[in-house]
Amino acid sequence: MAGISIFPVPGMPEITKGADLPKMAVDAAAAAGTPLRSGDVVIVTSKIVSKAEGRVVELATVEVSEFSRRYAEKWEKEPAIIELVLREAKRVVRQLGPVLITETHHGFVCANSGVDQSSSGGHGLAVLLPVDPDGSAKGMRARFKELGLDVAVIVSDTFGRPWREGQTDIAIGISGMDPLLSYIGQVDPHGHVFRVQVLSHADELAGAAELVKGNISRVPVAVIRGHAWEPNEEATMRSVIRDSERDLFR
Amino acid sequence: MAGISIFPVPGMPEITKGADLPKMAVDAAAAAGTPLRSGDVVIVTSKIVSKAEGRVVELATVEVSEFSRRYAEKWEKEPAIIELVLREAKRVVRQLGPVLITETHHGFVCANSGVDQSSSGGHGLAVLLPVDPDGSAKGMRARFKELGLDVAVIVSDTFGRPWREGQTDIAIGISGMDPLLSYIGQVDPHGHVFRVQVLSHADELAGAAELVKGNISRVPVAVIRGHAWEPNEEATMRSVIRDSERDLFR
Repeated sequence: MAGISIFPVPGMPEITKGADLPKMAVDAAAAAGTPLRSGDVVIVTSKIVSKAEGRVVELATVEVSEFSRRYAEKWEKEPAIIELVLREAKRVVRQLGPVLITETHHGFVCANSGVDQSSSGGHGLAVLLPVDPDGSAKGMRARFKELGLDVAVIVSDTFGRPWREGQTDIAIGISGMDPLLSYIGQVDPHGHVFRVQVLSHADELAGAAELVKGNISRVPVAVIRGHAWEPNEEATMRSVIRDSERDLFR
Repeated sequence: MAGISIFPVPGMPEITKGADLPKMAVDAAAAAGTPLRSGDVVIVTSKIVSKAEGRVVELATVEVSEFSRRYAEKWEKEPAIIELVLREAKRVVRQLGPVLITETHHGFVCANSGVDQSSSGGHGLAVLLPVDPDGSAKGMRARFKELGLDVAVIVSDTFGRPWREGQTDIAIGISGMDPLLSYIGQVDPHGHVFRVQVLSHADELAGAAELVKGNISRVPVAVIRGHAWEPNEEATMRSVIRDSERDLFR
């Protein structure tokens, strides 16, 4: 029976600006005894994409607005972080005390515009989301192809969600496969035609990958093998971002 | 390197009230050549749990309130379905045209209180969520134990979410393992102490299982092998349901 296997790619070196992530992943996976294969889905944590793309900011260099300064003081936050959160935001969706839920310039709704102080590789630094995660995924897919591998690439991040405690990894960038799988118009074994069901495989794949990445061990790449994906070179995450007109919670 | 494998349990018979789901899953998995093992996580689609528990309603027998009748007429919905959606709800969280986002009696926020007309095994029927999905999972875990298997059990359903198109499978009932994994207080390789990160493994496991279940083929059970879970007999989904006081979107 067809199944799926998920395995981590351990042993990636520390990532700095300009790093060739696909080459590093290919080498690390081979060294771990589980070489990548065409057909795999490679899930890359956004943090290392950001680092490779130089999206690391020294907080001391950030010019802080008066608003950010007052807000940070009121809620005992770091002023430069608040400044970055607001700069990375298209709008603030909800604010309650120190919690800022924002819509990023990409259209993702998340806490603090995805600005991350925890995994910046040092204190006094923050990591921002990639400027164009779909473009990042596309670039990595092209590089994997140069290395002889036809893989789908997902850039993942860890987001919270309303109503439920606990975060999950979701997709913020994709290349090679459609993030959504639609059953609309298909017929189930009972003859019932699906009218609404669309599954977000990209998010389910990203979440599955998190199960082997762990978070302490900081394995930033995982591979999913055995998932049948249809090649689609035009696919991006734009189809996942809900129009604000269709959105009841924005 | 430790990885995870996910495989479907095909060949489950049509489920009717009183069905012994664990026994059926054990037999079907063995017949498929992938017998269950202790340590597995078994993910069971809520629909077959509901059917086994008799949570199938004949729409013709539903007494429809005046409100439901008018609402259904206005939005061209089936009156008995609206009636069931409201009966299954603690409150309506959002309503926009025909779309009802409700909080169920369990505390889950979802479309139509999880009332499902699509997979009821026949027209004129609807399937309601299990009354107590944690209890359902607990009962199945106990039955698996009788059959010699120490497995964690997750009851899953397919939910939409705000801001993002596409649904994902999430957990609505659990037994044997904690649905959340907390990193709070742990230290990453850079010496940074985690202050907030809690991952919802139950939801990531349910989503991963969906990848092999498909939705047309209607494989209602999947197995995840290789995921390390710590036994916790007290675990329920209550820890995942966010207090309304901590919730910005309810």
